[in-house]
Order: sequence, then C-alpha cells, then structure tokens
Amino acid sequence: MIELYHCVSARSFRPLWMLEELCVPYRLRMLPFPPRVHARQYLEDNPLGTVPLMKDGATRMTESAAMCQYLAARHGDGRLDVAAGDPAHGSYLNWLHMSDATLTFPQTLVLRYTHFEPAERRQPQVAQDYARWFLARLRAVDAAVQQGGFLCAGRFTAADVAVGYALQLAQHLGLAREFPHAVAGYWQRLQERPAFERALQAQHRAALEQGVDPTPSPDLR
Amino acid sequence: MIELYHCVSARSFRPLWMLEELCVPYRLRMLPFPPRVHARQYLEDNPLGTVPLMKDGATRMTESAAMCQYLAARHGDGRLDVAAGDPAHGSYLNWLHMSDATLTFPQTLVLRYTHFEPAERRQPQVAQDYARWFLARLRAVDAAVQQGGFLCAGRFTAADVAVGYALQLAQHLGLAREFPHAVAGYWQRLQERPAFERALQAQHRAALEQGVDPTPSPDLR
Repeated sequence: MIELYHCVSARSFRPLWMLEELCVPYRLRMLPFPPRVHARQYLEDNPLGTVPLMKDGATRMTESAAMCQYLAARHGDGRLDVAAGDPAHGSYLNWLHMSDATLTFPQTLVLRYTHFEPAERRQPQVAQDYARWFLARLRAVDAAVQQGGFLCAGRFTAADVAVGYALQLAQHLGLAREFPHAVAGYWQRLQERPAFERALQAQHRAALEQGVDPTPSPDLR
Repeated sequence: MIELYHCVSARSFRPLWMLEELCVPYRLRMLPFPPRVHARQYLEDNPLGTVPLMKDGATRMTESAAMCQYLAARHGDGRLDVAAGDPAHGSYLNWLHMSDATLTFPQTLVLRYTHFEPAERRQPQVAQDYARWFLARLRAVDAAVQQGGFLCAGRFTAADVAVGYALQLAQHLGLAREFPHAVAGYWQRLQERPAFERALQAQHRAALEQGVDPTPSPDLR
C-alpha cells in the first residue's frame, strides 16, 4: 500500500488530494512540523528531512508535483493524466512544473522570513519581494482560467491539484485577497471538489489518531 | 521548427542542451538579460517576461525542466525518456522536478541578493541561507551518483540534463568548490558530453549573430 509522510497543510497535501481524487488506498504517516526538528527518526526514512515522502513499492519520491504526475500516470487509468502524444501534453507538464518551482517556492520565502525565523532574522523586504514575485507569476493562471474551467486539456487534471495547492498556501499566507477575479473563481471551484474536502478530513483525522497537532503548522494558521 | 527564446547561460540552457542531445532542428532566439528590461517587445511573446519560452507548433512552454521531459517524450524516440510503466518512471519524474524547484530556485536567491539588486537592497544573510539550503539538498544527488553513472534508469536521461544545469549554475556562483566528491565527478561527466559542448557553442554563435553580449550575464561571469 502507498505510504505518504505528511505534515498538516504542507506541500504533501498535493499527493494526499490526488490519492483522494483517484480513490487509491494509502497509509498516511503524520509528522509534526518541521520533522527534521521534531521527529528526528524521520531522517532515517528521508535524509533531507522534508515532506512529502511517498513510497509505492520500490518507488520513492520526495517532490510533491512529481507525485501528482506519477499517481495520475500509474494509478489513474487515464483519469487526471494527460498522456504523451496528447496535444495538451506540453501544457500539462508546464503547469505541473510551474506549480512548485514558480508558484510555491516564492511563497516559502514569505513564510520563512515573516514567520519561521526568529525576530532578529526576519526579512520583511525579502518577504515582500517574493509575495510580489508570486502574484506577478499568477497572471499566467489568470489567463488560463479566464473562461472558467481548468488549466489544460479542457478538463480537471493532476495539474489542477498541483497548482491548487499553491493557491491554498497563498490563502494561508493572506495573499488570496490579491487573487485576480478569475483565479478567485478557479480556487473556489477547486475547493468544492469532494476529494479536496476528503483530503482535509483525512489529514485532520490522521493527526488526531497519531497524536500530532491537527491545526495547520503554527505559522500557517 | 521549434523556437527557443534564450539568454546566455540562463535556465533556457536546459532545453538547448536537450535539443543538441536529440539532434532536433531548432531556431534559437537570443535575448539580452533580463529581457523584461532590455527587450520590452518580448513581453508580447511571453507576458511573464521570463526565459525560456519554447514554441513547438501549438505547444507553448515556459518551464525549463518541463521542456526537458517534453522534448524527450515527443522528439526522443525513446532516448533520454523514461516512459510511464518503466520501474524508474517515479524516480525520473522526481529528479526532473527536483532539478528546478529544489536545486535551482534557491540559487536564484543567491544571485539576486548578491549580484542583481542594488547595493542597498543586497541581503548577504539570505544569500547565505539559500546557498546552504542548496548544498544540503545536493546530498540527494551525491547519494544517487556514488557509484558513478547517472541519476536514474541506469543511463543518461533528460533528468541528467535538468539537474546538470543546476550544477552549471552553481559553478557560475562559485558553489562548485563545495560539491561533494561524487557530485564533482558527475558534473565532470556531464560536461564531457559532446551535446553539452555543442550547446555552449550554439549560444555563443547565436549571440554574436544576433547582436547580444555572448558572455554569460554580467552577474554570471
């Protein structure tokens, strides 16, 4: 059975949401945040100390957007995947990569330099630089969903899960109020998916069962 | 014919190197760096103002690691690609995503806050934070190439091109002297590939022909 190591509302929410979309059985291993500080034994499983870690038989992955693509290709029976050869394949790959490299990483700087670091190491200028950087890149999403619907291939795919998490993180950080109109509508459509709601419930339940604080990390409340 | 918009030694070097590996014909459009300042008309092609931009028929992409995967799948005849269904597929996807989201973005912070920003906005602490962050994540590459060879599937793939660029950028930034031994050997093997050398020559020649400064951006010399 697929094992997913997860912190509440961290990037590992992407594969969790994918697993719920695909109705694939999985075991959710909850960790306190950040695991490299509060769950030192986790470094034996993942020396980088990061979440997610996903194990599926001999396959072992640590990149959340890659997991979305993998799960769709391996466990999707064609659903949520856009196969090589499909005219939308390039666009699909582009959104998957953009979701993390372009739309999530800048937000982690906001998080780090306004919340995680002790007061004397905080960097409001850097946080502001990268909040602006993120919002500027979000114009690509805005252009893609102007007519409603989803990012590519004329249907909901793993790319929407991957980009959706970037919007979820932005909401946690208070950036959602600056979403352009079409992005706000798109984010609303994503949250209405039953699998999104099931993923939220699954992490809450698993956190309580496993003795981990079920609220998003103190810095994401 | 494929069109690639490129700045010397920027991330767009990834698809350029891939095109040389696959011997696929392409047209290279050189831009001064940063294009959103020095080539305002480029914003009509790519409103984000970023490189790369790659056009292949109706397909239009802006993420360099996604392009590596796309080119291998679409133009590789199986070479350099690791198809869905291959036992190494998950690992392949993981490296492709890690190459940019985990191994390149942190370096762009070093670049920004030690070189690009005017003196009063430089942030040596942030540059140091993310140089360390990058080197810590590089341990994953070190573990993968301990025995020589390449990252996954027992052969050279698009994932090596994508990760190889992160090492090239690190060298430009003076971080290569901190590469672990196995990573240094791996980076040496990558540079010895004829297609890597052809890609270097192609950008130099195209820059001269198109009236763009052929040395890496002032901040990458």
